[in-house]
Amino acid sequence: MLEFIGKIKTPYDSVDACPRNTGKDGPLCSLVLKKDYQDGLYGLQTGDKILILYWLEHFKNKNVPANPPTVSTVPMSQTSKEDGVKKGVFSLRSPRRPNPIGAAVVQIESITQNIVEVRGLDCVNGTMLLDIKPAIMDELS
Amino acid sequence: MLEFIGKIKTPYDSVDACPRNTGKDGPLCSLVLKKDYQDGLYGLQTGDKILILYWLEHFKNKNVPANPPTVSTVPMSQTSKEDGVKKGVFSLRSPRRPNPIGAAVVQIESITQNIVEVRGLDCVNGTMLLDIKPAIMDELS
Repeated sequence: MLEFIGKIKTPYDSVDACPRNTGKDGPLCSLVLKKDYQDGLYGLQTGDKILILYWLEHFKNKNVPANPPTVSTVPMSQTSKEDGVKKGVFSLRSPRRPNPIGAAVVQIESITQNIVEVRGLDCVNGTMLLDIKPAIMDELS
Repeated sequence: MLEFIGKIKTPYDSVDACPRNTGKDGPLCSLVLKKDYQDGLYGLQTGDKILILYWLEHFKNKNVPANPPTVSTVPMSQTSKEDGVKKGVFSLRSPRRPNPIGAAVVQIESITQNIVEVRGLDCVNGTMLLDIKPAIMDELS
């Protein structure tokens, strides 16, 4: 069972309104941690790059993740929105994947108590947050 | 419930034998996908950088993830192995985290059927694989 550590606030109220990918210069978004997890932020600061993980089944706004689609319901071959070509799911960033976990590297704009502000996330408002890690090595540009 | 898409083969048979972080020039490791997921690799090729996600509770070698530790059992403040300083779990890459999901960006050395070879992973042999995504933007060096 996964544990949601908080929610992501973005300007996008539907999946259709979301940009296709993250963007450094995008609008401010907030990672709002549950109070129990606030102390886990100690040591992070403005300017740090972080890798965040979130649960892409955003439309199921429950505290416990639903069973993700299984291999029988997630097609291994999907059409790329970039170029319309059929590709394997692992060569795409499609949200329809065996484990619907999204990942993004973003820079911290500010931290205030349990709220971390970043820019340019591509997920829908209310998306459940799974993890924050310091970005390292190849994750850094 | 998460779905394991395969296993990671590394040279490390115990957690203690694992390097602290990933390394570009490390030894060859293999992502061995279950046959059902092999078609999901279509479109990936040698030289591509990928972001992989894996389940850090490697010592529980089951097909279904055990319940991860909850906030009551994972300390929000942990001692950094780098510098011995106490830090919040979200500013560390510690495997003891609310959701024990590991992440690494690596380059594909080869793909043969359901096996993707990469270099320098830091996890124990037999670690369960959760996802492969093409690395994008800030994830790329």
